[in-house]
Amino acid sequence: MVDVSGKDVTARRAVAAARYVTRPDVIALLRDDALPKADVLTTARLAGIGAAKRTSELIPLCHPLPLDAVSIDLDLTDDAVLITATASTSGRTGVEMEALTAATVAGLTLHDMIKAVDPEGTLTDVRLLEKSGGKRGDWRRQG
Amino acid sequence: MVDVSGKDVTARRAVAAARYVTRPDVIALLRDDALPKADVLTTARLAGIGAAKRTSELIPLCHPLPLDAVSIDLDLTDDAVLITATASTSGRTGVEMEALTAATVAGLTLHDMIKAVDPEGTLTDVRLLEKSGGKRGDWRRQG
Amino acid sequence: MVDVSGKDVTARRAVAAARYVTRPDVIALLRDDALPKADVLTTARLAGIGAAKRTSELIPLCHPLPLDAVSIDLDLTDDAVLITATASTSGRTGVEMEALTAATVAGLTLHDMIKAVDPEGTLTDVRLLEKSGGKRGDWRRQG
Amino acid sequence: MVDVSGKDVTARRAVAAARYVTRPDVIALLRDDALPKADVLTTARLAGIGAAKRTSELIPLCHPLPLDAVSIDLDLTDDAVLITATASTSGRTGVEMEALTAATVAGLTLHDMIKAVDPEGTLTDVRLLEKSGGKRGDWRRQG
Amino acid sequence: MVDVSGKDVTARRAVAAARYVTRPDVIALLRDDALPKADVLTTARLAGIGAAKRTSELIPLCHPLPLDAVSIDLDLTDDAVLITATASTSGRTGVEMEALTAATVAGLTLHDMIKAVDPEGTLTDVRLLEKSGGKRGDWRRQG
Amino acid sequence: MVDVSGKDVTARRAVAAARYVTRPDVIALLRDDALPKADVLTTARLAGIGAAKRTSELIPLCHPLPLDAVSIDLDLTDDAVLITATASTSGRTGVEMEALTAATVAGLTLHDMIKAVDPEGTLTDVRLLEKSGGKRGDWRRQG
Repeated sequence: MVDVSGKDVTARRAVAAARYVTRPDVIALLRDDALPKADVLTTARLAGIGAAKRTSELIPLCHPLPLDAVSIDLDLTDDAVLITATASTSGRTGVEMEALTAATVAGLTLHDMIKAVDPEGTLTDVRLLEKSGGKRGDWRRQG
Repeated sequence: MVDVSGKDVTARRAVAAARYVTRPDVIALLRDDALPKADVLTTARLAGIGAAKRTSELIPLCHPLPLDAVSIDLDLTDDAVLITATASTSGRTGVEMEALTAATVAGLTLHDMIKAVDPEGTLTDVRLLEKSGGKRGDWRRQG
Repeated sequence: MVDVSGKDVTARRAVAAARYVTRPDVIALLRDDALPKADVLTTARLAGIGAAKRTSELIPLCHPLPLDAVSIDLDLTDDAVLITATASTSGRTGVEMEALTAATVAGLTLHDMIKAVDPEGTLTDVRLLEKSGGKRGDWRRQG
Repeated sequence: MVDVSGKDVTARRAVAAARYVTRPDVIALLRDDALPKADVLTTARLAGIGAAKRTSELIPLCHPLPLDAVSIDLDLTDDAVLITATASTSGRTGVEMEALTAATVAGLTLHDMIKAVDPEGTLTDVRLLEKSGGKRGDWRRQG
Repeated sequence: MVDVSGKDVTARRAVAAARYVTRPDVIALLRDDALPKADVLTTARLAGIGAAKRTSELIPLCHPLPLDAVSIDLDLTDDAVLITATASTSGRTGVEMEALTAATVAGLTLHDMIKAVDPEGTLTDVRLLEKSGGKRGDWRRQG
Repeated sequence: MVDVSGKDVTARRAVAAARYVTRPDVIALLRDDALPKADVLTTARLAGIGAAKRTSELIPLCHPLPLDAVSIDLDLTDDAVLITATASTSGRTGVEMEALTAATVAGLTLHDMIKAVDPEGTLTDVRLLEKSGGKRGDWRRQG
């Protein structure tokens, strides 16, 4: 674990995204909350938030951090759910992994709810979009 | 949580895969274990195995299962790490989510170890490859 | 921890109940999902299911059990939410504590979602209703 | 999860209470530590403290908080155990849920230790008594 | 993680021991429960049992197991606490690590309770005494 | 749990050590990474770091702390592995238990990896070496 004791406590924020790809008829069922398991989107959101809080238990060299906020947005396209996760802390190290973990576990939970009708659903393009705070300053993904 | 009390205890197995995409120079560092954080592949493997054991804590409607085995293979290509995760149980429900969780957290851990040199690294194509056991019999991904 | 190695593996089931008491205007907001925090009932249900899976971590002498099913029903009255939790296992010991933990954490989560508008909300009458399976046979609460 | 990054770090404290109701002969056994499971009160106290530390894992939208103190008092009446739990933090959000979770899990643990002799034992009146710290200032339960 | 799916489910049991060495005056305080922190022995016992249940989360390649029983005995000598931990399961793999983890965390908890009066207290001789069950049959430590 | 709300937030650091004793031929296998389980030293190190992060879940009266750093050094002698664990925080209470827990779980993990070839391996001399920070100032073990 990198020693962060010499770093300043600053407000830090990270945004991650992912995409869960399935069939258009599954997205239609999701819009109508007509899948065998109900409340799919709320369940995925809560799972993502819960996972963000446990990031340091999942990722071996992550520091435990007191999170100030985690939010997850889920937007439906014709054949996919777009996942955006934002995490914030006031701490000595960044929250990229918290945002990525939130997006990922939200996506895995979508699959758990959907897999009875589409076992081929795929979670893809899990990536950091931007981060701010800390000594290196702001960073934003290119392209 | 789906009631599985009427299902038989059978040997069940699932294989999931994912791909972590980065730059060729990062893969070269990885081959030489020359990244700022050492033992990247072992760390990712152990993180994936640990996450498989905690799947039912992460995915809200997953059943807690006694796992018989979890293994994770990591293969390097020119610009990516191919992740394959296999999970086995003797239980009343399948281990797809355990295999997918293992593959995903292994991938997130790769990113945690690599992000200082490539913050744009992306985890992609997280998907189930095959599963066996249980009433519905074997399933294998098409294409 | 009581030694259960001499007990038979049988299908076991327990039902617990609790009541979260608040003001009628809060129940009206809850019916319309118009509280400051959305999806209150789904969140409470998922929290209860999650807690059932962690019962053996919370209650010092509980055995870890593979749960076959957990479900939580929430019914609204004029000034309360009635919580019913059912847990099932195929194991060597009963699931009363799992059902009680599920009902309780569902109730605490209701309070967390409601406390901004009613800090006086009270969780009450947390109790076992019935259990079945195991050597002692069925039990049902009197009165 | 509510964004608390704009809130000040202040000393915050909350007191919660609950009552575990059983039969007078069970209370007599409890006074003499003569129940089948020993050290009932200490076990309940430790379980409550342990649960307070895990509140953010149990309650989906709770923030992880560094706790400065948790204490649990158990007082015996003729037919009940009165549970009082106090939690303190130096943080950006309150510790009501930590105090309530501590009181509740202490009560559930009492039931786990007592249920062999009184399966009808009931945990009741789980409620916040007072809280202090933060922008809204002090609050005390009426009546 | 070793694949245990081909192994039989049998009754398995392991006994581990450790010794926590401190000063005679500390042992005297412990006998009278007169240390700054009360209920030292009960707290250590419960911590050991709790840790046994979490062995597979702590030891990376351990399998999650449903434990049938865990017990911890603490005996005082003139300058030490002798710790004996026994774990049992009906499973496909042994419970040595569960017994060792229980003994160890009981010992660490003794130190946590005692360290204000003896920061030099030492946990020593953590070792397996015997195990039974499984294909290899019984094993007992020599000497 | 001791109330630490009146204590200052200061940089605190603790160093603990332990020794895992086995046979010389096992140490030779370890040097060559030729044991049945691979990557023994890395696995033990990661297990120790993971355990340090969970100290407050394992030790009943430990405060949850945001860790700034944890590191584990493993040195081989002819018949033992010397374990040194260092933990740092910026907090209101010390990190002795985090350092001791890290050293201990690293040692237990060594045993888990080695026990197939040496079930008699012993973890011994788990002790605090030094600590700094906080009101009482620095402390260093005598002899």
